[in-house]
Amino acid sequence: MPDINLEEITEKIKNILDTKNIREFRALTEDMNEADLADITEALEPERRVIFFRAISKLSKDTAAEVFAHLIPDTKEALVSQLTAPELGGIVDELFLDDAADLVEELPADVVKRILESASPETRQGINQLLQYQEDSAGSIMTTEYISLRPDMNVEESFRHIREVGTDKETLYTCYVTDPKGILIGVVTVRTMLLSQYADKIGDIMTDSNLISVNTNDDREKVTELFQKYDFIAIPVVDKENHLVGIVTVDDAMEVLEEESTEDFHKMAAILPIDEPYLSMGVLELAKKRIIWLMVLMISATLSGQIITHYQSVFAALPALIASIPMLMDTGGNAGSQSSTLVIRGIAVGELKIFDALKVLFKELRVSLIVGGGLAVVNFFYKYAMSGDLLLSVTVGISLFATVIFAQTIGGMLPLLAKAIGFDPALMAAPIVTTIVDAGSLTMYFAVASKVMNV
Amino acid sequence: MPDINLEEITEKIKNILDTKNIREFRALTEDMNEADLADITEALEPERRVIFFRAISKLSKDTAAEVFAHLIPDTKEALVSQLTAPELGGIVDELFLDDAADLVEELPADVVKRILESASPETRQGINQLLQYQEDSAGSIMTTEYISLRPDMNVEESFRHIREVGTDKETLYTCYVTDPKGILIGVVTVRTMLLSQYADKIGDIMTDSNLISVNTNDDREKVTELFQKYDFIAIPVVDKENHLVGIVTVDDAMEVLEEESTEDFHKMAAILPIDEPYLSMGVLELAKKRIIWLMVLMISATLSGQIITHYQSVFAALPALIASIPMLMDTGGNAGSQSSTLVIRGIAVGELKIFDALKVLFKELRVSLIVGGGLAVVNFFYKYAMSGDLLLSVTVGISLFATVIFAQTIGGMLPLLAKAIGFDPALMAAPIVTTIVDAGSLTMYFAVASKVMNV
Repeated sequence: MPDINLEEITEKIKNILDTKNIREFRALTEDMNEADLADITEALEPERRVIFFRAISKLSKDTAAEVFAHLIPDTKEALVSQLTAPELGGIVDELFLDDAADLVEELPADVVKRILESASPETRQGINQLLQYQEDSAGSIMTTEYISLRPDMNVEESFRHIREVGTDKETLYTCYVTDPKGILIGVVTVRTMLLSQYADKIGDIMTDSNLISVNTNDDREKVTELFQKYDFIAIPVVDKENHLVGIVTVDDAMEVLEEESTEDFHKMAAILPIDEPYLSMGVLELAKKRIIWLMVLMISATLSGQIITHYQSVFAALPALIASIPMLMDTGGNAGSQSSTLVIRGIAVGELKIFDALKVLFKELRVSLIVGGGLAVVNFFYKYAMSGDLLLSVTVGISLFATVIFAQTIGGMLPLLAKAIGFDPALMAAPIVTTIVDAGSLTMYFAVASKVMNV
Repeated sequence: MPDINLEEITEKIKNILDTKNIREFRALTEDMNEADLADITEALEPERRVIFFRAISKLSKDTAAEVFAHLIPDTKEALVSQLTAPELGGIVDELFLDDAADLVEELPADVVKRILESASPETRQGINQLLQYQEDSAGSIMTTEYISLRPDMNVEESFRHIREVGTDKETLYTCYVTDPKGILIGVVTVRTMLLSQYADKIGDIMTDSNLISVNTNDDREKVTELFQKYDFIAIPVVDKENHLVGIVTVDDAMEVLEEESTEDFHKMAAILPIDEPYLSMGVLELAKKRIIWLMVLMISATLSGQIITHYQSVFAALPALIASIPMLMDTGGNAGSQSSTLVIRGIAVGELKIFDALKVLFKELRVSLIVGGGLAVVNFFYKYAMSGDLLLSVTVGISLFATVIFAQTIGGMLPLLAKAIGFDPALMAAPIVTTIVDAGSLTMYFAVASKVMNV
């Protein structure tokens, strides 16, 4: 089935908006997914955009709210400034609370003020409650809009209840059972209910032992790990006393998973974490995120310079040695970052733990013997063919061998060491590993050169 | 709520297995999640493991099959060799077909032979059908076990139908409506059904226009993109004639998302993609995945060595120049990999397209002016304070400035260029960017040195 042709539909929409044919508008947009409606909203120019959005919200406030949640921050901001306070209030009250709270976090303060003033007191209270939770905590990504059932309800009554209250809930498929004090005592999925009889009691069919839940203060990464392990559609969030306070749904977990990967990619390239799209970041801000680590690494790299200065007499005697420095440095850096990447990613997806350190060390040692050996042999013949200098080729080959072994064991160990002392393993990636390996490989190079070539 | 204490439970299980108290065993394991049962299976020694697994499958074949699907390949293989053919057949027939097909792909040929011989003819046919689809295609990750409804059924009848056939289906929550020829004509969620009346006809409440589906041959990355855009629980997979052939569920999409990220991490560190856990990979295989790119990059890096050899007379005249080479190379490599990482990740999450190239170029230019300028100024003063050599400090400062600008524009452009000519942008990451930037920065360094210092 072909994808929706956005350009074609946008053109149609423009015509309909200009002719104000509300019936045609309804026919075209009614069955369209909110994410597609949001794409069309983005594609329209600002004047038509607000007319389009008003037309959607006349057909369904609920749809309009979901479309709004899908927009990028810049469009949201523009739209907020074009809508009247009652229009805005109508939308914000229809948003799922977690989306509304995200909105408040991502928009500038003056826009937020307008939004909160337009919302109903209940919505405002709900938003403020969600905003209390620490960034990157389970509480910060949960929604408070879930379905609660009582253990003495039967399946038929539960379905009736879901039909009454379900429209506003982010998921219907997992329902939560609490005692009168609000403590989570069971979980029941619609799957279980559909596969049971209408007269079955919730208390009898719910899962009530080994319940999986997270605490509001748990890291949101823990939430995504549980989703990956258990294939749930939603996970309950409880406070310290085990009161049910919210749920996290799988679509939000998937977003977190993507964000956490992006954060790791950035950290591993020596960039401070960025949570805005590249194109909407300001140049100054982008520069700031990037210059800090570059500065630290630049200063550290002068250490390698000092090693070279220290052995200046060796170079003076044998200038041909200099030509292999870039190859040694690059290969050492690449070999080390292979190991650190494998281990960092292994830790991130839960395959590697701190107590695997010895296994990793042993494996990296053996791998590096093969890899280093292979590279050194090829390099030796290549160098000898090019230069005809046997001793020089031996020196470079041995140094390369030692460099790869050093690089891959250091690269494999550093992320685990970082994890062990409570740092983020992703920081021990290519940039830092390269800096350390450079210093090591140059030192070894000179040591080997002075032995083999007697300088 | 505390996590399940795996060690404690495993100890309890060991005692129960040794005393053979089946009632206690049932009480302890009945409500436990399959993922946890799988963890316990992994934690047991081989002899107790097969007894444990047999005990679970006596209580429920269905649970045993799900536990089996959660095990790591090595444990699966060991278990297959310990089970009798009828036991094995019972498990394989209960597996979801996509899990069974995965099993066939990840285990050695002789083990697969035993599995296929033990399975029922229907299961065998189902597995073989799924195995036809290309690796990394939508067909390869779909399951054929979904619920179909007819448009003339009402909600009550649909619920009855779900109750009858639902146990074996991977999701009940999204049901698919096909015409007599098997062509997908509509989608209806249990949410919609629960929010409708029992008498409502499926044909009236289903979504039947703008249906989102993928083709069996589409890349699996397209599937994850659709999940991220639309927040679905399942997506239908159709063939060229629009016949419904399967569905992909959100938990499988989440797994794909994680695997695709891992693949990118590996590629960006110059490692050939690895789809096994680090600890279960053989040393030789790991070495093979790593040596190939290192070899290519090592040979390329000799280009930088040739540049140095070419300017040997400059070094001979001014040996102090050599000391700054590591700093220039490292900073250039780091600056370039920052840009390439941002752009590669931007492309991967769909934020950046090929036609954004000019915007990226302009942005990287401006960022690099600021970053390069900042680094150059700091480096100038640092170098001058250390060496007291004004001309040398100016030379290094200017070269650093030019290197960062070169590195960040090249780093930002290469992934987009790769994408434009049909290559994987992730290959244009740190290793290749560093090699190119090294050659450029050394050339600039010598050019600047000969101008400024007149050598």
